[in-house]
Amino acid sequence: MSGSKSGGLTVLVFGADGYIGWPMAMHLSKLGHKVVAVDNLARRRWDREGGTYSLLPLRSMGRRVARWQDVSGHPIEWRRADLRDFPAVDALFAEFRPQAVIHFAEQRSAPYSMVDREHATMTQVNNVVGTINVLFAIKDRVPDCHLIKLGTMGEYGTPNIDIEEGYIDIEHNGRRDRLPFPKVAGSFYHLSKVHDSNNIHFATRAWGVRATDLNQGVVYGFETEETSLHPDLHTRFDFDSIWGTALNRFCVQAAVGQPLTVYGKGGQTRGFLDIRDTMACVTLALENPAERGECRVFNQFTEQFSVLQLAELVAKVRHEHGLETTISHVPNPRVEAEEHYYNAKHQLLLDLGLKPHFLGDTLLESVIQMVEQHASRVDPVLLEQPSVSWKSGGNEVWDRYSNKEGASPASRKAVPAGSADLV
Amino acid sequence: MSGSKSGGLTVLVFGADGYIGWPMAMHLSKLGHKVVAVDNLARRRWDREGGTYSLLPLRSMGRRVARWQDVSGHPIEWRRADLRDFPAVDALFAEFRPQAVIHFAEQRSAPYSMVDREHATMTQVNNVVGTINVLFAIKDRVPDCHLIKLGTMGEYGTPNIDIEEGYIDIEHNGRRDRLPFPKVAGSFYHLSKVHDSNNIHFATRAWGVRATDLNQGVVYGFETEETSLHPDLHTRFDFDSIWGTALNRFCVQAAVGQPLTVYGKGGQTRGFLDIRDTMACVTLALENPAERGECRVFNQFTEQFSVLQLAELVAKVRHEHGLETTISHVPNPRVEAEEHYYNAKHQLLLDLGLKPHFLGDTLLESVIQMVEQHASRVDPVLLEQPSVSWKSGGNEVWDRYSNKEGASPASRKAVPAGSADLV
Repeated sequence: MSGSKSGGLTVLVFGADGYIGWPMAMHLSKLGHKVVAVDNLARRRWDREGGTYSLLPLRSMGRRVARWQDVSGHPIEWRRADLRDFPAVDALFAEFRPQAVIHFAEQRSAPYSMVDREHATMTQVNNVVGTINVLFAIKDRVPDCHLIKLGTMGEYGTPNIDIEEGYIDIEHNGRRDRLPFPKVAGSFYHLSKVHDSNNIHFATRAWGVRATDLNQGVVYGFETEETSLHPDLHTRFDFDSIWGTALNRFCVQAAVGQPLTVYGKGGQTRGFLDIRDTMACVTLALENPAERGECRVFNQFTEQFSVLQLAELVAKVRHEHGLETTISHVPNPRVEAEEHYYNAKHQLLLDLGLKPHFLGDTLLESVIQMVEQHASRVDPVLLEQPSVSWKSGGNEVWDRYSNKEGASPASRKAVPAGSADLV
Repeated sequence: MSGSKSGGLTVLVFGADGYIGWPMAMHLSKLGHKVVAVDNLARRRWDREGGTYSLLPLRSMGRRVARWQDVSGHPIEWRRADLRDFPAVDALFAEFRPQAVIHFAEQRSAPYSMVDREHATMTQVNNVVGTINVLFAIKDRVPDCHLIKLGTMGEYGTPNIDIEEGYIDIEHNGRRDRLPFPKVAGSFYHLSKVHDSNNIHFATRAWGVRATDLNQGVVYGFETEETSLHPDLHTRFDFDSIWGTALNRFCVQAAVGQPLTVYGKGGQTRGFLDIRDTMACVTLALENPAERGECRVFNQFTEQFSVLQLAELVAKVRHEHGLETTISHVPNPRVEAEEHYYNAKHQLLLDLGLKPHFLGDTLLESVIQMVEQHASRVDPVLLEQPSVSWKSGGNEVWDRYSNKEGASPASRKAVPAGSADLV
C-alpha cells in the first residue's frame, strides 16, 4: 500500500452524510488523506418519512464541506451518488482509483427495517446490492483496494458462549476447523449485515479482495475533535425510537424530566464505544490494511453494558446534580432475550493500538448539557412508546407521525428548523 | 394440522415449472392434496437468454396441467405469478389459505449467478425478496402455514469437520450452545440460499412461523412415477455447463462419444439423491410438519460421491456395454477445494421413513438410453468448455451463445423444437 501512516491515501467514504460517516470524512481529511465523501442523502429522506430529526441541526453536505475547508484548510470532495446505481459507483472507482473504501452507506436502523414488508425488503436490497456493487467495482477497477465495511455486533445475537472476532475454532467428532462464528441476528436490518458479511467473505476467497469487516457496537457521543470546530460541522444526534439508541433516549428523557424507559427487564447487554474511538478504530484499520484475499473481522467496541445499567448511569449523574430521575420498564417491542450471557472479545483493535475512551460521568454530563441547550427542539412525541413492534410492525404511533409518500403538504409534520437543510 | 397423511392439504407449490417443482406438483396431486402450481416461467426465459434448453422437450404449464388431469383424474390449479410481486403473492394466500407452501421458486444455478454483476444481484434480490414476501404473507394471512423451503447442501461449503443438519452443539471456553452450523457458501447463488436460511430462521423466532429448510444435495434422474405417465408430463433434463449437473453432462458426453470432462482434480465431494427420493423427502416434510416457531433443517441427500467417482461410474456402465469412455480433466472454472474432507449427516429424513434409491447401473443406463433417444437434440456446443468462470464471469462461450436482451431476432440462436413451448 502506498500512503501509509503519514496520510496520502485516496479514500472513498460511502455514507458520508451519516452520524459516523461525516465525522469520519473530516477525521481522515485532517490526517492528510484525500477524501471523497459519497452519499445519496437517504437518511435525511427517511427522517422526513418518519417525522424524526437530529437534535443537533444539520447543515447540507455542500455547506459542511465548504465550512470544513474554511476551518481546516483541507478539501473534501463531495459527490451525491447511490450505491445501488452501479454506473455511478463504477464511475467513482474509475475516476479516483481509491486505495481504500470505507462503507457506511446502509440502512442502519433495526426498527425501521421492521416497520413492514416494504421496509424489510428495502433494507435488505439496499444494503446487499450496494455492497455487491462495491465488491464488483473493486474487483474490476482496483483489485488492490482495501474494503473497510461497517458491520454490527448485532450480527452475532446473544449466544450462550463467548463471542469471538468473526471466526471460531471448532473441534467436533475428533476433527477441527476455523469457521465463521455462527450468527443469530435479530431483525431484518441485522440480517442484512450478516448477508453482507457472507458476500464479502466470498469475494475475498473468490477474487482475492482485501476486506476488514468491523462488527461495531453501539456508538455514543456527539463530538469529535473535528465536529466541535464549528456548529456547521455537527453530526447527527438521534433520540427517537427508530434511529436513536437507548443511551441517547435516556439522556434526552433525563434532560426534559421524563422517566427513563427501559424495554422489558433491561438485561439486554451489548458492546458500546465512544464516537471518538470509532474514528480511531476505522483509522487503524485503514492504516493497517488486510492482506489480499483476507477477510479480517474486528469486534469494534470498548465496554459492555446492559440497558438497565445505562439507565442507572444516567440517573446517577443526574442525582449528583441533585436531580431525581425515575426508571420505568415498558413492554419490549422487540423479540430478544432480556437476560442472557454476553461476553464478546474485542482484542484485535487494542492490539493495533486503540486507546479507548470509556463511558464516564463527564461524557454523560456533556451529552445531557447539550440536550438541555437544545431542549426546545425535543418533540416529546418522539419519546413516547416505541412506534415499531417486531411482531406487528409500525403501530399507531408510526402511522400518526410518519409522512407517507404522496401525503399532502398540509398533513406533513413540521420539524424544527435546520433539520432538513438539504443540498 | 388438518389433512394428515391421507391427503387433503391445500398446498402452494412455488416454482412449479421447474425440474423438481413440476414432478412435485403431480406427486402431491396424486396423493390427494389440493395443489396450486405457481411459477413466473423465469427458468424458460433464462434458457432463451443463455441459448440452453432441456434435452427432454417441455410442454407449456397449461398443456401439462391439462394432460395431468387427463391421465390421472386429478386437477392442478395453475397460476402464473412472480414471488417478487407481493400483491400477487398475498392474493394467492388470501384465496387459497394454504396449510403448506413448498418453495422452489429461486434462481438455482451457481454459474448463472457468477456470469456478471447483474446476474449476481438479480439472483440475490430474486431469491431473498421472494422468500421475504412469502414469510410476510404467511405471518399476515395464515400464521399456521408450514413453509417447506428448498435450500442446498452447498450452503455449508466443505468444512474440515462433519456437517450436521442445520445446527451444531458447540462447547467453547467451558460453555455450550446449540447454534446454526457455520456456512461458507461458494457462489452468489449459494450465498442467496444462506441469506434465505437466516431470514427464515429469524421469522420462526420472531413470528412463530413453522419452517422446514431442506438442504438438498445434487438431484439426478429424469423420471418419477408421474412424469413417466405421458411424454407431455416430462420434466427438464439440463446438460449444459450453466444449468446441468456434472452427472447429467457425463451421461450426455458418454452418449455422444465425447470424453467426460472433470473440473480440476475431481475430488470435489457432494451429496446426491434420486429425484424420486426428492418427491419422498418433501412429502415426508409436508406430512410431518414443523412445530410453530420451529426452524427445522434436514440435509436432503442419500449418498456422497466425488465428481471423479461419478465419471468413473459412467465409464464403468459404458464399459459393460463394450463401449470405451475417456475421462479428461479440464481447468476448474470455479473457486473451490478439489480435495477435501466431506462427511455430511443425513439421518433426519431416514428417521421420518425415507427409503432411498441408490445410484446404480440401472439408473445410469436409463439416463444414457434416454439421452441416446434424444441425441439429435444435443448441441455439442453446450458440452464445450464451461462458459462462466468464478474469477472473470461469463467468457467468450457465454457471449457467443447467449441471446442478449435487445439482440435482433436474426442473431438469436435457434433451439430444438419443443424447447420453448411457452404458455
